[in-house]
Parts: sequence; structure tokens; C-alpha cells
Amino acid sequence: MRIEILCTGDEVLTGKIVNSNFSYVSQKLEDVGLSVIWGTTVGDDRGMLLEAFRLASARADIVIVNGGLGPTVDDLSQEIAAEAAGVGLVLNEDWLATMEGFFTRRGRTMPPNNRKQAMLPAGSEVLDNPIGTACGFALDIGKARFFFTPGVPREVRRMLEEQIIPRLLARAGTPGIIHLKRFHSYGLGESHVDQLLDGVEALVPDGSVKLGFRAHYPQLETKLLVRGVDRDDVEIKLAPVMAEVRRRMGNFILAEDDQTLEGVLLAGLQRADKSLAVVETYTAGGIVARMAHLPGAEAVFRRGVVSRAESRDAASVALEAATQAGATTALAVIISVDDGPDRMDLGGSIDIGIADGGAVVTRQARILGGREWIRLGAIEMAMDCLRRFLQGLPIDERSDFERR
Amino acid sequence: MRIEILCTGDEVLTGKIVNSNFSYVSQKLEDVGLSVIWGTTVGDDRGMLLEAFRLASARADIVIVNGGLGPTVDDLSQEIAAEAAGVGLVLNEDWLATMEGFFTRRGRTMPPNNRKQAMLPAGSEVLDNPIGTACGFALDIGKARFFFTPGVPREVRRMLEEQIIPRLLARAGTPGIIHLKRFHSYGLGESHVDQLLDGVEALVPDGSVKLGFRAHYPQLETKLLVRGVDRDDVEIKLAPVMAEVRRRMGNFILAEDDQTLEGVLLAGLQRADKSLAVVETYTAGGIVARMAHLPGAEAVFRRGVVSRAESRDAASVALEAATQAGATTALAVIISVDDGPDRMDLGGSIDIGIADGGAVVTRQARILGGREWIRLGAIEMAMDCLRRFLQGLPIDERSDFERR
Repeated sequence: MRIEILCTGDEVLTGKIVNSNFSYVSQKLEDVGLSVIWGTTVGDDRGMLLEAFRLASARADIVIVNGGLGPTVDDLSQEIAAEAAGVGLVLNEDWLATMEGFFTRRGRTMPPNNRKQAMLPAGSEVLDNPIGTACGFALDIGKARFFFTPGVPREVRRMLEEQIIPRLLARAGTPGIIHLKRFHSYGLGESHVDQLLDGVEALVPDGSVKLGFRAHYPQLETKLLVRGVDRDDVEIKLAPVMAEVRRRMGNFILAEDDQTLEGVLLAGLQRADKSLAVVETYTAGGIVARMAHLPGAEAVFRRGVVSRAESRDAASVALEAATQAGATTALAVIISVDDGPDRMDLGGSIDIGIADGGAVVTRQARILGGREWIRLGAIEMAMDCLRRFLQGLPIDERSDFERR
Repeated sequence: MRIEILCTGDEVLTGKIVNSNFSYVSQKLEDVGLSVIWGTTVGDDRGMLLEAFRLASARADIVIVNGGLGPTVDDLSQEIAAEAAGVGLVLNEDWLATMEGFFTRRGRTMPPNNRKQAMLPAGSEVLDNPIGTACGFALDIGKARFFFTPGVPREVRRMLEEQIIPRLLARAGTPGIIHLKRFHSYGLGESHVDQLLDGVEALVPDGSVKLGFRAHYPQLETKLLVRGVDRDDVEIKLAPVMAEVRRRMGNFILAEDDQTLEGVLLAGLQRADKSLAVVETYTAGGIVARMAHLPGAEAVFRRGVVSRAESRDAASVALEAATQAGATTALAVIISVDDGPDRMDLGGSIDIGIADGGAVVTRQARILGGREWIRLGAIEMAMDCLRRFLQGLPIDERSDFERR
């Protein structure tokens, strides 16, 4: 199945906004085993849109169009879709009623120009948008099936997951269901994990489990894509592979699926009835920024202190911070970056201290890779140390990113 | 002049990385008055690349190709460019020597596979890359001029500015030079500034000054694009318009051109020989993250404290913070967000205090727009208050983002 993503809108074409919808949609399709072969970006221009629809319909089996479903005159997707398909626009009474309800619930009257959003090409299949007024729709243009989606990120994301991916999998004739299992780790490089996990796919002999990676330094995501006839089949296939991945990656797995490192930390602190103070140098508040805004953080997070210079060691700083903030636990990260201009082999020495109940543990490391690389690495290493501490795991297992 | 941007690479096509090169290049071209009409994204696939080159050469006058110039086997741009142009690949001895020098200066020997990066389609014009081994080049394919650029962001950015834009402006027959003047503001919406600046373009009667905007909440960028025969001509044209923009936007202009709000604050503190402490609630260290990593910040920045809950007012907190941190000046931001689920009309009350030399000034405001909107708005408002304070301007001028 050849899939094209066609992004529309002057704001995207002129670079006023970065096109994160494209990468999001493409990635989500990859995650269920579908591949995008082509991407097109055009502005809010009738001629260009028509030409883009024509080319895509000749090139692909499936075209996902993003943007151009709004109420204003420069939103042209429905109109050009109808023209390309050689049909007229028809008022969809159901969607009109849905929109009117949307406004009524907010105590407002629907502006007249929103009516345009319920005008769909004749013969379209509606794709529900439960969180906005832009109605998605699917339509054949030439030999390709087009799926039209709104430009608002949270709307296209939901429509993709709930409406489009199930239809694509059905069309692809994929037997049963597809499940993506994800493991998040810090400290092991992609090629290292690839070696570590050599042969795990073969634990399911029918080839229905596929291993993949997504590296976004400092974390690595390890993915298992599983096909099965139903949920039970998927679980049976996945169980031995999951167990083996957990065994081989061991303490380096910091979270799974939608969990995040910061979420795991917060949950660990909450479970143990602990409170936290953080002292950071050089990381410019990167740890605090990851944690302090989380729901529930106010009950756990006592204080974050960011300073540039610190002459003491992380152990003393952590002990003092816990006392001063009245927290059960404190995490201190003291970084000393080498002198000289920023460069690929610039190094930094990292001193991490975790104070808890009057005792303190520490971890020292050295990272090479330039200022931003050191900063990001130190944030992740410090947070992962705290995770390991809270989970009773060794905090000094050697990571691939260190030089000694 | 019809310009197309053609991005290549599996990592971009599959969404592993967000394509920020596309928006960067497009925006930079817009900034000099050139418009992109089409964007294409394909993977590292011979057939798709050839088809994309063929389509682009028929559609555009200028095609900027990004990516595929690396040393590995999946970097195909030179090879497919040669095929599309119907020419062979020729070793460029000059670039080979440049690359060898690049490695020698780093005390290394050039790996043999880098030689591939000096193989260019016959008849290519070299586009210098002073910071990498990927040689850029320009070549006619069909009726279009193609410019091939490396995928590494800092390399394509520099090549665009130094090599490509001057060539495009020369081809476009743009008389003389183009200059972009930028003003950054906080507190005025785009339509408000558009009204305020009504008629400023007409101060230069020959139509050579064009007004534009780029809104990235909470800041707004106001742009003046000026064409002139030479630098003097540009300066003469720009002077009265710049003066008028400054007069009408007044204290809301927080920085110009490449200046940033955080840079202006740091410079203002340095000039006045002041040191700073910051206390933030709810903004999760957003102010500290903007300032603490700047070069020179270590001499000014005393301490940043991030906490979730604060029962006192910003004035008391700021006074105490200055004393505790031993700083001449302290900025405190206390935010109280309304209860209930996140929604577009959720509000937050912001209390800002600036302590300086034992005295304190405050500013209160209320913003509606949901949690993230409030968080971003409060960071900007607090930093802008500090700028106004340091510059001796009123800190309580009403912004468009407030509700009273």
C-alpha cells in the first residue's frame, strides 16, 4: 500500500510553522507497519492544490491530506477535493448539527462562516472529529483513497488514531490486529541494544514480531511490533519476547509504553511518601522543567534551585538542600565543563548526589560531545540515577555515553 | 521565480526527525522576498528521487535539494542528480583536497568512503561548505537550476546564506540589495500592531519597503523588508520607517534583529553591575531556562528557585530572595491558576515582584487561555517587566493578552 502525506497551508509552506504534523503522522503509520512513500507540501492555492491532488492520486493508493478544513476563505480542501473528484459539494446536515451543538454547549451561536465546514464533496465518508469543528472525510480521487484531516495537531492526531489507521489496516488486509510495545532506556546506544537483543524476534517463529529503534538522545526507544489474529494472540506472542527484552536490557529500562522517566520518578516518590528538592548547576533548570509542571508534583516537589557556580561536591549540596527545603530527598547535579570553545569533543565532568533520610549516595561520570550534549546527558543521567535509587537498583552501572 | 524545496532521506520521510530544515530554508527565502511554491519529501530511494527530480525540474525554476550528500551508500543525491541531468560523475580534486585537509587538521586520516563526497555531476558549480565534508553544488536539470545542500542543519543554513541566496537574488534580477529589519515585541497582538503601523510603508513612496509579521506567542516579530540599490540607499529608505515603527510601538519593542529578550536582560544587568535571583512558581523554571545558560550569565545570575506553591505575595518573595541569594535584584513570579480541567478559557492570576536595592515594585495581571498559554505568557510578562524596570520604563502598560 503506497501512502502519501499531502500538507497544505501557507503557514507550513512559508515556514512560519514547523511541519510537525507530517513527522507525527508518518511515525504513527510506521508504528503500525505502514510506510509513507512521498510527502508533498503546497500552500493555500487552488491551482497548486489541484495539481498536488492529481499527482498524488496517480502515485499513491492512500493520500492523507492535512489542513485546509477551516471556516475561512483560504481553507480550500473540500472545494478542491470536490473538483478533483468531479463531484459537487453537499451540505452534511449531521455535521452542521454537530457544530451547532459544539457552539451551543459553549454558550455561543455558530458564526455563519462555519457552515462551510459542513460542505463535503458528494459521496464522502465522514471522519469524526470529537474535539473540533473541522469535519474529516474520505473520498476516492482517481484510483486513490484520500483522507482529509484538520491542521490542528491534537485534532489530526486523534482522527488518525481513531478513524484513519483502523481503515488503513482493514484495507491493507492486515490479518487481525497490530500492537506496538515500547521500552525506553537511558545509557545504552542503539547499536549496543541491537546486539544485546540479537535473536529475540526469532522467539516467535512465524515472523510476526519485528524489532525496531528510535534514538532520541539521551533516550533510546526499543519497539516491538506484533501482528496477531486478536488481542489474546498478540499477548501470547509478545510475552516471551517482552520477558527476554527486559532480561537483556535489565536495569537500563526506565519506562515502558506511554510512561516517561519524569512520571516514573514522581510516582516512585509518591508511593514512598517522599518529597523532593533539586539543585542544578549548568543544566539551566532542565530537571525542574521536566518534573515541576506534572499533575501531582505540587505535593512532592519542594524546591528547585538553579545556580551557575558551585564549589562544593554534590553530596554536601544534596544534604544541605534536603534540610533547607524540608524534603525527605534531594538530588544535586554539579557539572564542570572543560574550558575552551564548544566542539564535538568538549567534555564535562558530572557529579550527582542523592540525599535521603540523612544518608547520601553519589555517582561521578564524564561525558564528551559539546555543551548541549553534556547538558542533556547530565539531566538524563541524574534523573535516571534517582529512578535507580528509588527502585533499589545500582546507580553506577556504566553507560555507553561515558568516557573514563 | 518559482522555487521548490526537495527534502530527501528516510529519517525525514518516516518522521524519525522533524523536518526543520524545510521551514528554515523557506522562511529565510521569504525574508529576502523569494517565495517557495512547492515542497517535496522523499526517502533514500533511487526511483523516487529520480521521479522527484524530474517533477521538480518541470515545475520550478529553482530547486533546493536538502540531504543525501553524506559518505554512506544510502546518500544518493550526486548519483541521481547526474542521472537526471544525463551526465557522469567526475572527481572534484579541489574538494578532495579540502576534505583531506579537514581530516588532517583533526589529526585523522580521511576514511576511503568520504571520497564519494567529492564525486560531482559533470558541469556542476561547487557551493562551498566551510564547516563539513559534504560539498554543495548547483546544476541544471531540465529547465531548472538545482542547488544541492547537506542535511546537517548548521551546514545547510550557512550554505543557504552565503552561497545560495546571493545567487538566487542575482538570477531574480533583484536590483541591488535586500535588507530585513526586525522588531520583537511582547504584549500587542498581530492585528493590533497591524493597525498601529497603518501607513508606515507609504513613508517610502516607491514601494520598496514591505511590512510583515511573524507571531510566535507570546512574542510578535514585526518585519520591514527593504529593497535598495546599495547599503546607503537601504539605510536612507529604512530610517524614517524605523523611527516611525519605534514611535508607534513604543515601549513594547523589547529587542531588535538578532537580539533576544533574555540577552537584553543580561546585558542590562551587566551594564548596571547588578546580580539577579529569580523565584518562579508554576512556570517550571521557564525563566531560568531562558537565561542561566547564556554566556556571561554566571557572573550575574545568583540563584533560581522553582517551587509549586507560594502563599506570600510576589513583593515579599522578591525581597527575601534578593537578600538570601545576595543579589542586587530579584524577580518573583507567583501564579495562581483557576481550578478545573484545562480549557481554552481557563484563567490565571499573575503576581510579579521586582526587588532592587531594598525597594520593590509589583505588577498584577490576569490571562485567559489554558495552562500552557498562561505559563508561557507569565514567563514573557515577568521577563518583560524586568526589562522595562531596567530601562526605566513603566512596567504596567496594559497588554492585549490581559483580561481585567
